[in-house]
Amino acid sequence: MEKVKIIALKESVLQDNDRDAQLLRDDLHSKGTCLLNLMSAPGSGKTSTLLALNKAFAGRLKWGVMEADIDSAVDANTMLEAGVPSVQLHTGGMCHLDADMTRQGIAALGMEDAELIVLENIGNLVCPAEFDTGAAINMTILSVPEGDDKPAKYPLMYETCDILVVNKIDTLPVFDFDKARMEKYARARNPKIEIFYISAKTGEGVQELADALVQKVKEWNSK
Amino acid sequence: MEKVKIIALKESVLQDNDRDAQLLRDDLHSKGTCLLNLMSAPGSGKTSTLLALNKAFAGRLKWGVMEADIDSAVDANTMLEAGVPSVQLHTGGMCHLDADMTRQGIAALGMEDAELIVLENIGNLVCPAEFDTGAAINMTILSVPEGDDKPAKYPLMYETCDILVVNKIDTLPVFDFDKARMEKYARARNPKIEIFYISAKTGEGVQELADALVQKVKEWNSK
Repeated sequence: MEKVKIIALKESVLQDNDRDAQLLRDDLHSKGTCLLNLMSAPGSGKTSTLLALNKAFAGRLKWGVMEADIDSAVDANTMLEAGVPSVQLHTGGMCHLDADMTRQGIAALGMEDAELIVLENIGNLVCPAEFDTGAAINMTILSVPEGDDKPAKYPLMYETCDILVVNKIDTLPVFDFDKARMEKYARARNPKIEIFYISAKTGEGVQELADALVQKVKEWNSK
Repeated sequence: MEKVKIIALKESVLQDNDRDAQLLRDDLHSKGTCLLNLMSAPGSGKTSTLLALNKAFAGRLKWGVMEADIDSAVDANTMLEAGVPSVQLHTGGMCHLDADMTRQGIAALGMEDAELIVLENIGNLVCPAEFDTGAAINMTILSVPEGDDKPAKYPLMYETCDILVVNKIDTLPVFDFDKARMEKYARARNPKIEIFYISAKTGEGVQELADALVQKVKEWNSK
């Protein structure tokens, strides 16, 4: 028996997702909750980055996670086992989450006092970038094996995100990944994007990312 | 100046993509052309696999490539430089190709005598699997760094595909990738899926894949 709560999301009936997203963002802000929308290609290491961040947060944040997936409950189980309150959201084949689906997930998570809620979006560099989820922070992960040209190929993802995490830097010796080339492509799309280099596996760079996130969350919640 | 031909695709006006895809498949069959729809997550190595296959085909197939992307002409330029007739298709932000968009691309490629046309679809494990492009063969690439759990998380992609290519096997020592676990997940979704293990980088396994593809293409075209 799976112990994780699985929520089958219903498609939104609202036409205006942008307005709905702003309502959700304002609602969360009034409750002192910062929503972080985490996006990446499949297999970039979203869940393992969250596990590494959990250690590095070291109890400084009350936080929970919504794991969105087409199918399976692997990720939410993993987070629960690490002691992080989590729910699994099933999108029923949908390739992204909108604001209303995010709201259903937050209700199911049921953490009224959360300072940070992370939405781990569907692994997809295209569609999730097109839908405002109501997040205060949009963050994307690019893993070294995917190559340094991804910001040139999936521009909207990099335009949308505040933070770019380059993961699996322990594998830099194995792959042809030019950091300068990647940064040039990313900053051409979004000059303000903040870039962190980490290895969720070895822990390198994770503390710096965690510290920056804790600060951003506290700032947002006290604004 | 870019020498590659870039085609901005128009969205189809046809409601019934499945019927349109079947028409395209029949039309191509009557011309002795096999269309292969190549899908994967971003950065799995679609283009580098095609480059490796080009060498291994060793002139046995008259073939061309349509490189679909949200933006950039990197991939079609790469294929052209390797001597493979190629066009770059821009989807204007769309996350997949349907049969009519594929037809526009084939017309732009202008290879009436091609035995094989490869559509390199948008890097995305969700949406492309939902749209029949008119392909005779659907093939997906899973690269080792993405992890062995992808067939559990993106089931439709594996249900849809005839061939699963596991790429970047030269990096197996660096990653926790359980072949048996991946195969179990994939075959649970699609018992008939054919699995090939390759490294487009070192060339390992590429000849076996090329030989199988040449045979399938010849069989399809002479059916």
